[in-house]
Amino acid sequence: MLILTLNCGSSSLKCQLYDEASNKIIAKAAADRIGLSGAVISVKSDNGEITVKDKIITDHKEAIESILKCFKDSAVLKDINEIEAAGHRIVHGGDLFQKSTLIDESVIQQIESISHLAPLHNPANILGIRVLQKILPNISHVAVFDTAFHSSIPEKAYRYAVCDEWYSKYKVRRYGFHGSSHLYVSKRTAKMLDKPASECNMIILHVGNGASITAVENGLSVDTSMGMTPLEGLIMGTRCGDIDASVPAFITKMTGKCIEEVDEILYKKSGLLGITGKYSDRRDIEANMETDKLCKMAVDMECYRLKKYIGSYMAVLNKVDALSFTGGVGENSSLIREKTLENLEYLGIEIDKEKNRNLKRGVETEISASSSKIKVFVIPTDEEIVLTEDVIAVLNGKYKDHSSYSYSFL
Amino acid sequence: MLILTLNCGSSSLKCQLYDEASNKIIAKAAADRIGLSGAVISVKSDNGEITVKDKIITDHKEAIESILKCFKDSAVLKDINEIEAAGHRIVHGGDLFQKSTLIDESVIQQIESISHLAPLHNPANILGIRVLQKILPNISHVAVFDTAFHSSIPEKAYRYAVCDEWYSKYKVRRYGFHGSSHLYVSKRTAKMLDKPASECNMIILHVGNGASITAVENGLSVDTSMGMTPLEGLIMGTRCGDIDASVPAFITKMTGKCIEEVDEILYKKSGLLGITGKYSDRRDIEANMETDKLCKMAVDMECYRLKKYIGSYMAVLNKVDALSFTGGVGENSSLIREKTLENLEYLGIEIDKEKNRNLKRGVETEISASSSKIKVFVIPTDEEIVLTEDVIAVLNGKYKDHSSYSYSFL
Repeated sequence: MLILTLNCGSSSLKCQLYDEASNKIIAKAAADRIGLSGAVISVKSDNGEITVKDKIITDHKEAIESILKCFKDSAVLKDINEIEAAGHRIVHGGDLFQKSTLIDESVIQQIESISHLAPLHNPANILGIRVLQKILPNISHVAVFDTAFHSSIPEKAYRYAVCDEWYSKYKVRRYGFHGSSHLYVSKRTAKMLDKPASECNMIILHVGNGASITAVENGLSVDTSMGMTPLEGLIMGTRCGDIDASVPAFITKMTGKCIEEVDEILYKKSGLLGITGKYSDRRDIEANMETDKLCKMAVDMECYRLKKYIGSYMAVLNKVDALSFTGGVGENSSLIREKTLENLEYLGIEIDKEKNRNLKRGVETEISASSSKIKVFVIPTDEEIVLTEDVIAVLNGKYKDHSSYSYSFL
Repeated sequence: MLILTLNCGSSSLKCQLYDEASNKIIAKAAADRIGLSGAVISVKSDNGEITVKDKIITDHKEAIESILKCFKDSAVLKDINEIEAAGHRIVHGGDLFQKSTLIDESVIQQIESISHLAPLHNPANILGIRVLQKILPNISHVAVFDTAFHSSIPEKAYRYAVCDEWYSKYKVRRYGFHGSSHLYVSKRTAKMLDKPASECNMIILHVGNGASITAVENGLSVDTSMGMTPLEGLIMGTRCGDIDASVPAFITKMTGKCIEEVDEILYKKSGLLGITGKYSDRRDIEANMETDKLCKMAVDMECYRLKKYIGSYMAVLNKVDALSFTGGVGENSSLIREKTLENLEYLGIEIDKEKNRNLKRGVETEISASSSKIKVFVIPTDEEIVLTEDVIAVLNGKYKDHSSYSYSFL
């Protein structure tokens, strides 16, 4: 069975072609600047790379059709009817979706009904569904939600201390994101511990351009740092993370900017970019931290915030078996890991600095010292495998929820 | 020496008369609804109570003059010239004041220059200074700042991940409040530990209508939950504490309310009042939690947030000697203390439930179990003693900073 997975943004999209038989991703593709000048399509497979530049791509339908044509041109696909199922990554499932779900018209309408919670993402995700349904009308489409893994978070952790109207009517609460990544890494961490996930307490740190940390109790998410939106929590590439809730009103008053503009600054011009004034990429920041004190401070602040969340979730979980880093930065920055975990031996966390510095890229590695009560791992994430396996499981009718499902990577 | 201390709000004020010779507060007074209908003045001393009701009090000057007259009427004072010094509690010292300071015109102007950071408080505090200077022009006036104890917080903890303009120009950063209380309780906690404060790591939980928690390292504040304003952090009587920074913009969009109104709701109609829809007072909430599930949830949420901050500050401090509760709720609610500290034995915190439930009101008490690695105390706070002693110390020229000064309560 070939499965096409789609992650659709407002002017870009990414998709992958997965072959169930060989258990492999056989092609990856991306389209950028859809509907804008200078659109680009790139397709990669074992058969080579195709890049289409300076083409005008009017809309998402044209983008997907072009990608499918490239799949045929590079011989990964003979006919689009070989694709037997499609998986759609949906950012926000609100409180409506606790698991991956077969898409019908009512599901689309439900995703639409919570679009106000993710106005930049859900409408684009729905557009992706509509377009792919037109191109591939005879196959099943499955929705996989970024929020679903966090549906086990208890009320005391997902509610904010706001009035009932904001919660009941406008759905202001914590949802959490990066669900497929936290799911994958928590299951792999349990594997590393050689115990069923349902018997493991873990803290998973997904640190990339976006970043979130999740407290996993007996295999289930019980708290996570991103909230109603992906703005809350850790310091990210361009997002502020936690901040006094009075700041938006204060800045509106001081600068005369409208609240929408202030909100956009918190999303796009804050975080590490805000602190350094130049960089959102940790590689640039680390490269300049010896000479640029703002870069040094950005690292200090990011690691300090990570450390505080680790402590916070240790209190939530009481007994913790393991702590795992993942995501582009979590997997590749030994500095961020070392600074985050320094001086935590009273809490039972000690890393082996040599192991931490010399780990092999892309390999699951334990980096804790032998004296550490809590194991520390680096686990390369794989959100795509979760997406494709959820599609297969939903179609096979074997899928009750992500906690009980036996993924092939286990 | 008699010292008058003043805590001046926009339509209310509180003051106390302290006698250095007997080391006692000899009278307390309050004026409410200044400039409004139905103003009330109340004065208490060992010589009895005076309440003046249904009087029109035009302004703060009249309120203070009335109180001083009551002091004379109740014979705690023969003549106002017996007052030899005045202490003013100032909410926001911004990054300008690291310690209590003798007031002159330039100090007033500096406090004025940061009034945008506390628009409800600093102008009223300045008004209090101006009025009392007119009534008592020949004595020294000293400013004691709620933020000063937190001036030792390092940059990585006080900076938010926002752009330099917001920080440098508008002074958006963490300041922290409840300073005199955290100072007092941390010094008393060190005393209970029988060690110099400079050798103690402590977590101080001040839980009242407002609430904040402070990480104290070697006697100095290194992080605290309140931020640029007293809105951030713990769940409070009517304040939301931590929340996704996108919520203000989101609610503005969804309701059509202006950002100022949304900000006011976050301050005055959120927190425990928002959750329960009825109560901000923990006594009401605890009394109704068996029958009202919103009250039950409010307690769960408040204690959960407290627990997360404790873990967070344990990670900040690494080794922690003690954890102390103070403030109206911290001192008097055994339930909040018990629920906050349950299931923390892996972090070294265990309380003796009997001791916790049966402690004598107003008495410093250890409530940790003998097996607890970290001592847990209940310490009644006394912000007034810090205020009056700071006044004396500043006047005597003995005051360098609050960490080195030998308070009489030590």
